[in-house]
Order: sequence, then structure tokens, then C-alpha cells
Amino acid sequence: MQRLKCTLQYDGSGFSGFQIQPGKRTVQGILENALLKMHKGEPVRIHPSGRTDTGVHAKGQTIHFDSPYSISLYNWKQALNTLLPHDVYVKQVETVPDTFHARYDVVEKEYRYYVYHKEEPDVFKRNYSYFFPYALDLTAMQAACRYLEGTHDFTTFSSAKATTRGSKQRTLYQVSCEKSRSEIEFIFRGSGFLYNMVRIIVGVLLDIGQGRRKPADIDVLLSKRDRRAVGETVPSQGLYLWRVTY
Amino acid sequence: MQRLKCTLQYDGSGFSGFQIQPGKRTVQGILENALLKMHKGEPVRIHPSGRTDTGVHAKGQTIHFDSPYSISLYNWKQALNTLLPHDVYVKQVETVPDTFHARYDVVEKEYRYYVYHKEEPDVFKRNYSYFFPYALDLTAMQAACRYLEGTHDFTTFSSAKATTRGSKQRTLYQVSCEKSRSEIEFIFRGSGFLYNMVRIIVGVLLDIGQGRRKPADIDVLLSKRDRRAVGETVPSQGLYLWRVTY
Repeated sequence: MQRLKCTLQYDGSGFSGFQIQPGKRTVQGILENALLKMHKGEPVRIHPSGRTDTGVHAKGQTIHFDSPYSISLYNWKQALNTLLPHDVYVKQVETVPDTFHARYDVVEKEYRYYVYHKEEPDVFKRNYSYFFPYALDLTAMQAACRYLEGTHDFTTFSSAKATTRGSKQRTLYQVSCEKSRSEIEFIFRGSGFLYNMVRIIVGVLLDIGQGRRKPADIDVLLSKRDRRAVGETVPSQGLYLWRVTY
Repeated sequence: MQRLKCTLQYDGSGFSGFQIQPGKRTVQGILENALLKMHKGEPVRIHPSGRTDTGVHAKGQTIHFDSPYSISLYNWKQALNTLLPHDVYVKQVETVPDTFHARYDVVEKEYRYYVYHKEEPDVFKRNYSYFFPYALDLTAMQAACRYLEGTHDFTTFSSAKATTRGSKQRTLYQVSCEKSRSEIEFIFRGSGFLYNMVRIIVGVLLDIGQGRRKPADIDVLLSKRDRRAVGETVPSQGLYLWRVTY
């Protein structure tokens, strides 16, 4: 048996999320189906760095799986990409020690969120960013980002439905937002993320950009540890799992 | 009755082309269905500047239709966009004289074609550009563009299946290609275009970029007036109807 690590990208538009579900088209389902074909009907279970929701994209998701085959890494990549549909692409295949785990060994994750900030929507962006036509104070949003960086209990900024056990303390190494042309790019790098955390934070940053809250409110919201203290989760199609570091 | 002109964009990925066809999702079908709802079940026929094929996109397609309603242009735009799905968007509605015709009154059309020029594909580009991983001599391609500009008989560069009657002489005001990052943008501005003309020309320009032909071969190919003298039509997903001028 050899453990293999794959880095892949996928367009989330056509998937009911990552995790396998009967009767639904999921990234895991598509990947395990490709591996099933390669392994002559023998099921191969894959393990991702974490799940992504319906509509969420990946520029750099990581998975691992075990295989009895000893074929070259180049051939692994070719074989998988030949069997996969055009909305999933394996960028890299590496061999890793048997002790490697795509989820437990994560050191840092990076997510990005894209807002299409213009008066009118663009049909070509509809599945790839969140259309937001209202005025925004980017400087206030950038000031708010500073309050989010560092180690905090992010209970306020995670789904109340989350089944996460244990600590909701996470460390964010970078929180930033920059506008170029009509697109606002949010970057989040952290030790780990709670369920819906990025999408809830972006919603609060947009509230701040609209003057509904002040940047310093972030501290108050963090200390409340209550999801009900903040507004809506922004839509999934603006979110990208950008990179996973081990 | 009032004649209305609409400028619209659509993502061609989800359509079986522009022209209405029974049982198929087409841009015309979607638009006429929206107008049918607005006109309480009374059919309204729309007329485009020209059809687009399956998978071809529009940044600025133009249509006209007649309506007995006298509502504001703002309300027309709102009403249509409310009734249309998210992959079609009406950018502008204008009133025009009864003599205006979206097809016959065209003075100039602009098409653009996008090639994603990198070693590896990008899942987010798959429906919006043509993935081409081979080396290209852009200077040779640009030299070839010069031979295409002007007034020529473009029989060689139009589908043999075309039912175009009359002259195949057209004037191209601009033919250009530029690379920025990993994307090659081809711009074609002309008095009119024959069926598949842009996609056949791009195929020949890519042949020239690969050194299979020389820029000056364009003159020879034009004079042959034979579709069989040139290669494959490039895929539809890289093509955009960019602008129609009246």
C-alpha cells in the first residue's frame, strides 16, 4: 500500500458540495468513482483536508488515499484527469508517508472570497462571486480586518448548526480585503476555520463597509460568543478554498 | 405599437444556441417566454442582430421587438431582468423608430475569442475560453492578422454548410491578438461575419502560431475560396459576440 496526496481544483457550481451523498453529484463521489474504475471495482476511500459546501470552489483542495498500485506520479495524474469530468482537475500527485493525514496534519488553510462590486450584475460572474451593488467604505473594512487577526474564540462567527466539538478558538494569520477593478478580494489565512466562518465574517465586514457597524465592534462581537449577534451568511459561490499547507 | 431595442449579455454555456428550437433551452426561447408572461399570453417575436451557436457567449447582443405597452424604459429593464434566468441579463432598453431592424441595420459587429494558453487547464476557464497548451509565435500570428484586415471574399473561412446567399465578401476593420498573463485575446471588428468565420480564422491563426503555415499564406488561402483549404473550427466556448453597432 502506498499513501498518495493529491492537490486539486474544482468548480463548485455543479456539485452538491464535497461530501458523498446518495443520488447527489459530489466531489467525493466523482473522485471515488474515478478511483473505483482505476482499481477494477475495488472501492478506495478518500480523505479531504475538510469538506466544502454546495457551490464553494477549490483552487487548492488536498486529499489523501491509499492504493496498492505502484505507478509513476505522472501516470497517476494523467489517469485521474482522464477519468475525471472537466470541472475537477488534479494539479499534483505526491507520495507521502503512511502517517500523513490530509485533515489532521493541516498547518494552515487559506480561503478567499470574491465580491463583484458594481451597479449591475455580470452573467459571467454569477457562479464565481457575490454580486453586491451597494456603496462600501473599504478603509473601514480593512480596519475591521485588523481586529480579526490573531487568536480568538470565533463562536460568534460560526454556524450555530455546527457540530464542532471542543474549542472554537482559532488563529487567523491574515485577514485582508483589497479592491481591484470591480472585484473585492478577501484573503483569510488561519490555523483552521469553523463551519461557515469565512462567509459569516465577510457578511459582517460588508455590514461595516456599509456603516452599519464600526470596525471596533469586532471585539465586542467576538466576546459575545453568540452567532445570533451577527447577520447573514454570504452566498457560497464567492468562496474558494485556496490553499492547504502541511 | 412601440419598437424596442435591447442590449443583452448571456452566458452561452447553458444554452443550445440563440435560435428557438422545440424542447431545447435557447436564448430566444427564454426571451420570448419572458415577453409572453409580460404580455399576458400574447406571443411576441424577437429579432436578434444574428444568431449565436451553442456555447457561444454574448457581452453585447442586440434584439428588437414590438410591444403595445407604454411603460418606462427603466421599468422595461426591471421587468425583463426579473423574469429572465441568471444567465441572461438585459443591460439596456431603448425606444427605436418602427423602421429599425436589429439585423438589417447593423453597421459593425465585434467578436472576441479567448484562448487559455498555459501548460495545464483551469476548471474555471473551461466554459469561457479554449485551452491551448502548445507553444505559439505571437508575432507571426499578429503579422497574419494584417493580411486578414480589409475587404476580402471569405469563402475559405466560412462553414461549407453555410446557407448564406449572395456575396461572401466582407470587410474586417480590425483583426488583432494580444497576450496578457495566460490569456490570448483575439479581436475582430467587421462589417459582417459569415457562419463560423471567426472560429475558422482563429484555427488558422493558431496554425500560423505553431509554425505550420506562414503569415503570408493568408493571401493564398483567401484566393482559394475553398473551406477545405484550412483546418478545424476552434471550439465555441471561447467566442463572444462583444458589440453590435448601428
